[in-house]
Amino acid sequence: MEQRISLVTLGVADVERSAAFYRALGWEPALDVEETVFFQAGPLAVVLWGRDKLAADSGLDDPGGWGGVALAHNVRTNGDVDALVERARAAGATVTREPSATFYGGYAGVFVDPDGHPWEIAVNPGMPLADDGSFVVPRR
Amino acid sequence: MEQRISLVTLGVADVERSAAFYRALGWEPALDVEETVFFQAGPLAVVLWGRDKLAADSGLDDPGGWGGVALAHNVRTNGDVDALVERARAAGATVTREPSATFYGGYAGVFVDPDGHPWEIAVNPGMPLADDGSFVVPRR
Repeated sequence: MEQRISLVTLGVADVERSAAFYRALGWEPALDVEETVFFQAGPLAVVLWGRDKLAADSGLDDPGGWGGVALAHNVRTNGDVDALVERARAAGATVTREPSATFYGGYAGVFVDPDGHPWEIAVNPGMPLADDGSFVVPRR
Repeated sequence: MEQRISLVTLGVADVERSAAFYRALGWEPALDVEETVFFQAGPLAVVLWGRDKLAADSGLDDPGGWGGVALAHNVRTNGDVDALVERARAAGATVTREPSATFYGGYAGVFVDPDGHPWEIAVNPGMPLADDGSFVVPRR
């Protein structure tokens, strides 16, 4: 198995509402087909699809609520964190951790999208982004 | 907000057990620090961390179970799907959808890792992988 992800699919209650939220953050869909919205994110796609359909398609029961997955979007400055968390709040996100210093010496906040999917917006001085925005894990 | 993900963190009950599972699929950690395992996956990292810690760090309640997120790993042939699903089963995964034809004209199966995080292993003839393994959404 190659070490790559092709798609991250977020199950949502209302695809149009969710797409509007991500558009408000500045994302632009590449494709909107059969009640499924695809965003290109580097070499993978972030996909919005009905949570009930995703559960059925995956052969899973859905107890509701959060399921132990968090996404992170790292940025370069503390000001970038503040600005993006405020932009998300203005777009209707719930901020579950206000931007603050982190245990790893960085600065970060967390918001959840309209369906409760969390995004940590972070600066991590120990793992700075590459020039092209890639997150490269330091090998120690 | 740039259209990229820096980290996908999977909350797990036992980091070592989970790391062993992903190693059995062929993934190699880049970093193992403070009970957190990082895998490089192209321009992002897949991270294993205690689910209780991830919930607390994200400011979230955890009802347990699945939470509406699915990962997909696309491959090039139906035989690749079969082989990888069998490899995951041998490593202890539960197959929640046996490999079969999909509604979008492809072929796919789904397994869940030891913590119930689903991976769809798929061939999608309408959205073939690029030569470098990237998933590129067709713009229509």
